Amino acid sequence: MQFTSEQHLDDGVIEREFTLGEIPGILWTPSSVSAPTPLILISPPPLGLRKMHPRLAGRARHYATKYGWAAATIELPGSGDRPRWAAAEQARADLRRAMEAGEPVTDEIIDALVLPLVEKSVPEWRTALDALLSLPEIGGPVAYEGGVISIGVRLAVVEPRIAVAGFYAGSFIPAAILEEARQVTVPLRVLLQWDDEGNDRQAALDLFDAFGSKEKSLHANLGGHAGVPRSEMEDGARFFARHLK
Amino acid sequence: MQFTSEQHLDDGVIEREFTLGEIPGILWTPSSVSAPTPLILISPPPLGLRKMHPRLAGRARHYATKYGWAAATIELPGSGDRPRWAAAEQARADLRRAMEAGEPVTDEIIDALVLPLVEKSVPEWRTALDALLSLPEIGGPVAYEGGVISIGVRLAVVEPRIAVAGFYAGSFIPAAILEEARQVTVPLRVLLQWDDEGNDRQAALDLFDAFGSKEKSLHANLGGHAGVPRSEMEDGARFFARHLK
Repeated sequence: MQFTSEQHLDDGVIEREFTLGEIPGILWTPSSVSAPTPLILISPPPLGLRKMHPRLAGRARHYATKYGWAAATIELPGSGDRPRWAAAEQARADLRRAMEAGEPVTDEIIDALVLPLVEKSVPEWRTALDALLSLPEIGGPVAYEGGVISIGVRLAVVEPRIAVAGFYAGSFIPAAILEEARQVTVPLRVLLQWDDEGNDRQAALDLFDAFGSKEKSLHANLGGHAGVPRSEMEDGARFFARHLK
Repeated sequence: MQFTSEQHLDDGVIEREFTLGEIPGILWTPSSVSAPTPLILISPPPLGLRKMHPRLAGRARHYATKYGWAAATIELPGSGDRPRWAAAEQARADLRRAMEAGEPVTDEIIDALVLPLVEKSVPEWRTALDALLSLPEIGGPVAYEGGVISIGVRLAVVEPRIAVAGFYAGSFIPAAILEEARQVTVPLRVLLQWDDEGNDRQAALDLFDAFGSKEKSLHANLGGHAGVPRSEMEDGARFFARHLK
């Protein structure tokens, strides 16, 4: 883990860019830390860290200033400046074609779109977690929130250091992930935009139903993909706070 | 409106029992009020005020001490010491029989059980609202939370003084109420217990979908009818606070 830049922001938060091998990432920490802090992994949607920076930084700085937590994110495979791969480009083209033609998005398209992303990114998140937890100012416990919900499901199943998770049901869900969800046991909070254009509401409800967690809460709000109410950010932070002790 | 008792509680809240004609009710107000306060109408489930008192008082005192709001409730028709009527007893017996036999609860049973209760109680809530808003210490705006969700739907449609509502999707929903829900336009927060024994999950989701409100939020939590997490009470209060200005 190599830090490549460091900025001291006016709210007392330190924002550091880093690379982890070829993966770029960003770490936000409160400037004054007396004990090792909990860590929030913020998994971005696959639009690239640069494009998502204002939103990611907004959340991270809220966590740091209000709760004293560290937060970090890494670029997803195939996003930002990271190399694309042919199968992913093909799957994206197939999805676009199906949606423009008003045809159903088949299981094949969903699997081809999401599963390779899960396969590639989950080990990267685990490597990032190793590196982040080796920093003296970060101690855990660890919360995960994100982005591509299938990545979060797999990570919550295979990574015992994830203590709590906040998911955003805003992307297609492969049948295999729906099955894996039964093995998720951490406390869970799921956001669903009721009128999300690019999302199948029933699939999201089925996924919520499938989660094995004893504590799970679904917050559905009226509106499209980008319309999550601001109040949900603060509510999500309070949910993490109850479990990051 | 006749006050029949007055208690000064140790948290500085005044609890007064009253009667409104033959309807008993309870009013909680903060003891020191500098300006007329907002009002929360808390509609109980049909178990009777006496049985529900601890839970209702807990919520009302939270609103009064933390937010300075007044809160009031009245006994539902056919609950507590209020006279039963034959058709309601019959509908309850039919429901019990169907559920014990593992048979589907038909639309006829649901209509017979819920619609007369809506017909009777909505005018009573409006009368109570007249009386409560005539008190000098209460000024509005008014929030409604409850209980039997169908009563809330009708009240939110016909009563323009309701500014915001919090519903609990924990009872059967007649088809006519599902239709009326399209006319509800106030900001709305709906609680759903995902594994509610006496509740049809899909009917609750259909109702949420039907609401005409531009701002609506569904909070579904794992667990049975009585298992609403404590955090939802505080979250509900914050939701009201955003709209009671």
